[in-house]
Amino acid sequence: MKIIDVDVIVCSPGRNFVTIKVRTDEGIFGLGDATLNGRELAVAEYLRQYIIPCLIGKDPFDTEDIWQYLYRGVYWRKGPVNMTAIGAVDMALWDIKGKALGVPVYNLLGGRSRAYLDTYTHAQGTDLTSTLEEIGRLQDLGYSALRVQCGVPGLDKVYGVSSHDKYEPAREGERPVEEVWDSHKYIQFIPKLFEAVRLEFGIELRLLHDVHHRLTPNEAALVGKRLEHFDLFWLEDTTPAENQDALRLIRNSTSVPLAIGEIFNTVYDCQSLIINQLVDYIRMTIAHGGGITPMMKVASLASLYQIKMACHGPSDLSPINLAACIHFDTTINNFGIQEYMGYPAMISDVFQISHNITPGRIEPSDTPGLGVEVDLDAARKYPYKKSFLPVNRLVDRTLHNW
Amino acid sequence: MKIIDVDVIVCSPGRNFVTIKVRTDEGIFGLGDATLNGRELAVAEYLRQYIIPCLIGKDPFDTEDIWQYLYRGVYWRKGPVNMTAIGAVDMALWDIKGKALGVPVYNLLGGRSRAYLDTYTHAQGTDLTSTLEEIGRLQDLGYSALRVQCGVPGLDKVYGVSSHDKYEPAREGERPVEEVWDSHKYIQFIPKLFEAVRLEFGIELRLLHDVHHRLTPNEAALVGKRLEHFDLFWLEDTTPAENQDALRLIRNSTSVPLAIGEIFNTVYDCQSLIINQLVDYIRMTIAHGGGITPMMKVASLASLYQIKMACHGPSDLSPINLAACIHFDTTINNFGIQEYMGYPAMISDVFQISHNITPGRIEPSDTPGLGVEVDLDAARKYPYKKSFLPVNRLVDRTLHNW
Amino acid sequence: MKIIDVDVIVCSPGRNFVTIKVRTDEGIFGLGDATLNGRELAVAEYLRQYIIPCLIGKDPFDTEDIWQYLYRGVYWRKGPVNMTAIGAVDMALWDIKGKALGVPVYNLLGGRSRAYLDTYTHAQGTDLTSTLEEIGRLQDLGYSALRVQCGVPGLDKVYGVSSHDKYEPAREGERPVEEVWDSHKYIQFIPKLFEAVRLEFGIELRLLHDVHHRLTPNEAALVGKRLEHFDLFWLEDTTPAENQDALRLIRNSTSVPLAIGEIFNTVYDCQSLIINQLVDYIRMTIAHGGGITPMMKVASLASLYQIKMACHGPSDLSPINLAACIHFDTTINNFGIQEYMGYPAMISDVFQISHNITPGRIEPSDTPGLGVEVDLDAARKYPYKKSFLPVNRLVDRTLHNW
Amino acid sequence: MKIIDVDVIVCSPGRNFVTIKVRTDEGIFGLGDATLNGRELAVAEYLRQYIIPCLIGKDPFDTEDIWQYLYRGVYWRKGPVNMTAIGAVDMALWDIKGKALGVPVYNLLGGRSRAYLDTYTHAQGTDLTSTLEEIGRLQDLGYSALRVQCGVPGLDKVYGVSSHDKYEPAREGERPVEEVWDSHKYIQFIPKLFEAVRLEFGIELRLLHDVHHRLTPNEAALVGKRLEHFDLFWLEDTTPAENQDALRLIRNSTSVPLAIGEIFNTVYDCQSLIINQLVDYIRMTIAHGGGITPMMKVASLASLYQIKMACHGPSDLSPINLAACIHFDTTINNFGIQEYMGYPAMISDVFQISHNITPGRIEPSDTPGLGVEVDLDAARKYPYKKSFLPVNRLVDRTLHNW
Repeated sequence: MKIIDVDVIVCSPGRNFVTIKVRTDEGIFGLGDATLNGRELAVAEYLRQYIIPCLIGKDPFDTEDIWQYLYRGVYWRKGPVNMTAIGAVDMALWDIKGKALGVPVYNLLGGRSRAYLDTYTHAQGTDLTSTLEEIGRLQDLGYSALRVQCGVPGLDKVYGVSSHDKYEPAREGERPVEEVWDSHKYIQFIPKLFEAVRLEFGIELRLLHDVHHRLTPNEAALVGKRLEHFDLFWLEDTTPAENQDALRLIRNSTSVPLAIGEIFNTVYDCQSLIINQLVDYIRMTIAHGGGITPMMKVASLASLYQIKMACHGPSDLSPINLAACIHFDTTINNFGIQEYMGYPAMISDVFQISHNITPGRIEPSDTPGLGVEVDLDAARKYPYKKSFLPVNRLVDRTLHNW
Repeated sequence: MKIIDVDVIVCSPGRNFVTIKVRTDEGIFGLGDATLNGRELAVAEYLRQYIIPCLIGKDPFDTEDIWQYLYRGVYWRKGPVNMTAIGAVDMALWDIKGKALGVPVYNLLGGRSRAYLDTYTHAQGTDLTSTLEEIGRLQDLGYSALRVQCGVPGLDKVYGVSSHDKYEPAREGERPVEEVWDSHKYIQFIPKLFEAVRLEFGIELRLLHDVHHRLTPNEAALVGKRLEHFDLFWLEDTTPAENQDALRLIRNSTSVPLAIGEIFNTVYDCQSLIINQLVDYIRMTIAHGGGITPMMKVASLASLYQIKMACHGPSDLSPINLAACIHFDTTINNFGIQEYMGYPAMISDVFQISHNITPGRIEPSDTPGLGVEVDLDAARKYPYKKSFLPVNRLVDRTLHNW
Repeated sequence: MKIIDVDVIVCSPGRNFVTIKVRTDEGIFGLGDATLNGRELAVAEYLRQYIIPCLIGKDPFDTEDIWQYLYRGVYWRKGPVNMTAIGAVDMALWDIKGKALGVPVYNLLGGRSRAYLDTYTHAQGTDLTSTLEEIGRLQDLGYSALRVQCGVPGLDKVYGVSSHDKYEPAREGERPVEEVWDSHKYIQFIPKLFEAVRLEFGIELRLLHDVHHRLTPNEAALVGKRLEHFDLFWLEDTTPAENQDALRLIRNSTSVPLAIGEIFNTVYDCQSLIINQLVDYIRMTIAHGGGITPMMKVASLASLYQIKMACHGPSDLSPINLAACIHFDTTINNFGIQEYMGYPAMISDVFQISHNITPGRIEPSDTPGLGVEVDLDAARKYPYKKSFLPVNRLVDRTLHNW
Repeated sequence: MKIIDVDVIVCSPGRNFVTIKVRTDEGIFGLGDATLNGRELAVAEYLRQYIIPCLIGKDPFDTEDIWQYLYRGVYWRKGPVNMTAIGAVDMALWDIKGKALGVPVYNLLGGRSRAYLDTYTHAQGTDLTSTLEEIGRLQDLGYSALRVQCGVPGLDKVYGVSSHDKYEPAREGERPVEEVWDSHKYIQFIPKLFEAVRLEFGIELRLLHDVHHRLTPNEAALVGKRLEHFDLFWLEDTTPAENQDALRLIRNSTSVPLAIGEIFNTVYDCQSLIINQLVDYIRMTIAHGGGITPMMKVASLASLYQIKMACHGPSDLSPINLAACIHFDTTINNFGIQEYMGYPAMISDVFQISHNITPGRIEPSDTPGLGVEVDLDAARKYPYKKSFLPVNRLVDRTLHNW
């Protein structure tokens, strides 16, 4: 089998997605998600100009060789634009292989390692009251693991929280919105939030929280210590990890389980974190992590240290990436949990997923390949809209991590 | 002063370059080099769609804030496409600041730390005889530091060597050329090369050699030990350094001076290498390293460990990047050496550089700003030609590092 | 431009200051603060005899080369007398560069990274009641960050506290005053102090406290743990850090934010503290840290570890050092907070600062150079008065850290 | 006994020395050497203004308390000016104690631990021939340990070498002489030097060599490896050690014995070197190391790791410091060797030393106190002459370590 062509589709059914469709001489095609939130067109151009020409004529079964070709062949390795492009190609090749053999992708990887996938979703509220209500509502729907984010008194905007139904950080426009942040207010408030949640909902509910890179290592250590007795499932992205030693200080101070990695693109972004046991969950996702091929290796390294995989799975990646995560999650032994936010309704005009998604649980389907379909005609109805993730500043206008 | 617009120009006077021109409301403009060899259009698109809109209205003097805004504001940090775009902007802002104040950029950084810059150039030959001839020719021209690359018996193509006058690895076309590699042949031959060079030219000539990521750490240690008594100025890119510990094995085995970093994009790519003293020269260049602003910080970290900066400076980056390197090299105390390959003649139709370049030496000019000019009308005569760097395979077709 | 002469002025408008005025052949001059509290004349002599002769004829734009010349040229490196002399020269050169180019110094460094600078001031009282009153008074004036020092029951004199309006530790005379210290009394009292402060003023007020090197590492760990839940902004100088490992014990025991460094003179005094993440704020100041040139490098190293700069800024350094700090603080991304104690009224006879200082905030002016002026005629009216910082003894007369 | 006054004498019998004479109410006085080469008047001023007033009235027997008072009482600790002043005071107090009790100082410390002190002296030549001649001459005189320094072909000036009889780096004048350095030439030559020396003089002669901070850690490692089989007694000051980790790379690469420390002022300058066993000899000297009191503690720490003390003892410190070293060397168990250069003849007009100095050997006398006398009337005949140590630049004028 040979690859004969690759389409790149940028559409915006509620939000922007970059989709590739790898076509073969046998009529089988594979789908990949190349969405890099707020940088979509750069990845699309990268694919069209530099990746796709290299694929023509290659045998899609050669996933390892093609991955090495794309990863090493660029010379200028790593990086989100590059790795997202590679990631989309890799998942599309696995889709092709599954379809060609008539089996779901997980059966090509290592079969089923569990009956279903635990998922968590997002509970958010602009204040404590509305957050508690939302937790209750989601618990009633059947969710048993919730990422809880809440408006912080005195702060206008907080990551993960909006007054809308669903939080969507990317905003249409010609430049990023600037938000204002105050770590002190956050640090004061967040233990009260979880105290209230535990008081109302008891100890059984699995609670996650995303700090979203806002704290210094020592501030994160302090917050970790204060949250420790609320038995969080995890505390996520406490501090940026470009400097992987940053996590060491937190780890030395608290036993709160730590999750990190949604912005990681290669194993080298977490090599030191894993080998030094500085985290509990790696949150790399298939698209941004360069595909199923390298993610199996990350999972393998993590398993050596009893660290679990918990793929990033927000609505800013398309159902194709979610499908790839589902196959990955199904087959590895060291699966942690899968993030699942749901999607705006109009997304199903374009993307159909075969996996059975219910509150708190995903059951992988046995549809051959990744088990996802894209309606290209429908996609054309939703043209790209330039959007940016926000930029964050402190009160004095110092540029801070968003 | 406010930024009002930014042009992105992709031209190919002999090879592809991506140039930006940042315009201000005071008529002063700054130039930046955003060339990423073999990925030019991706950076251009990234700049046009996502970086330039964010710059409009900003004060070009705020280089630190703008750098932080671009670096942190993307959310998906690091990577060559992203950092090259940021690097071009940063050098253009320093160009504006220098022009606005009527001083060369080095005088804004820390003044002059030396009288002139030592440079090395490339000596190549397809076999030992022609390599020795080329070394002699270059030495006669006045060069006292040469990077020596030589064809390896039994290998058709070797990095750094061609039968043409100048070696140019990027090749026009729709996909990369594939070359074939055999580390065993290379390891056997390379000590003979340097034995012959020292025999013919004596000990004074400074000799550099680029392994170009081809060896494993232990193979590199072996080669390093075998070359140690030839007193190389440096041995470069012995092994890929995504895993920074890879250098430790080499360092523990040999005292050959080690250089690395032309594919690094941030300080995090070399933080561990520097702090653990695993290298002697950091080869990050201004464009790919994200600009003058972060490179001054890398130089500062390196100086704490007596490690020197030796910017990558091949012909695949435009004279604008070279000019930025010249200002950087002129001002830092821990300057090592500057790579200078020269350019094809037609490049001077488009780019004029004010610095005085003679064999083995660059004297920085005191022209305000970076001291480089671009003729956009001329640039239009040289449209972009898609080109790729090669891909490398072992004899059995295993994908290898190029 | 050439340096033609340097004046050294020692005056005492309320307290001693050593000022240098670097004169150039173009009539532009730069000001530097060389005050080393209690050792003023030694620095003045060092400058007159050994530093100034080396400066004549040099180009003031060559700040990096001159700094290296002074730092390495002495052979006997480091130390407070030496580094303060160098620091004064470096800030004067930047003052010249700014004036020559018509821009504030921050625009030569990296522009503005924030709208204004947060400052803290000192709240002191001889007992709990008067301390709480003083906190209230300062809060009413608009301060939102206060360093709180309070008399300890049973101790006659305590660092940071006097019965006068302003605490001034240096005392005129022929030798130091001796004070008496008891760590046990201090350790017992200090948690009560902050309990009372939080009870009366709530959680929003930012509270700092200076232990002033009085405790052993383990005592400091104990105090840190007891203060942790009062959410201090920082705990300062808990123990001497000549042995940088001393901080490790404290850090391993508590997440109280730690500040240190007002007596540091080079990056080597905090290299290990930073790289091992043992502190949160580096308190080196421009004059004692050897100038703007090396302090930018310290800030850069600290930023790699998310550690912030918070320059020492008491009244024993002149407004020239304060101005240098203001430019430094304005431009670096990892600014923490600026200490500002205010000055006795008569100081404005000699020093005029252009920056806008209001309670809790400093707005940098755009006056070219450092933005500070000195009236030498007025300075002559205030001759030097020998003064010493105190010496500290335990109750049994054991010599202890002051 | 009480200290009633202290004289500070700056004289120049062949070179500058700063001498203090501590007078007591019992008529006994003590001598101290406060010479800091090229910074003499700064130490003299420091002593006169700030140290001496603090001594009046103190009991000279309280050496520990006085040392702590001076070290901690300054608040701004460490540094060469400060520590040299303290060092002179401390040795003068021991001189007083010895004289008061009628015993040599070593008998107050721990008595005699050996019969005599091994010394080494300096053998220098402008070229290989003259160096070999000088070694022969000194060996004939009875020396069995020689520090060999030799002019390097192609370099005009080299540390430790002059065409005069005795090498004296400090030069009279209003600013430092600038020398030019090239590490490459040095690295090429120095193994040839020691090959020739061993060939001519055999293996018995103890050979030392001083690199004088000129190399990077990796260059030093290379040189160390190449010299290893010549069995040097030590290789000294291979690289600056402000960053104490610099020595680690050298240590990991070669077993050449390493000596360092003539510019160290406190135990903190070598704490990490000792505890990590990165050196074999600590070269701190009594005057610059803050006196006999702290040096006994450094020796004690070093002994824990079988590291030996080998005090710096060149002619730029006066015979008073030499005498202090002799007592120190005599009493500690972990004595290595004592440097002894000799002095210009006219020095004996001013300083008389009671210890028996013969080629390669010093026998401590039992004269009470330090065993040295100063003729103040004679000293007045030799007024201070401003002198500087040189500054070093690379060929391209980069400021380098001298």
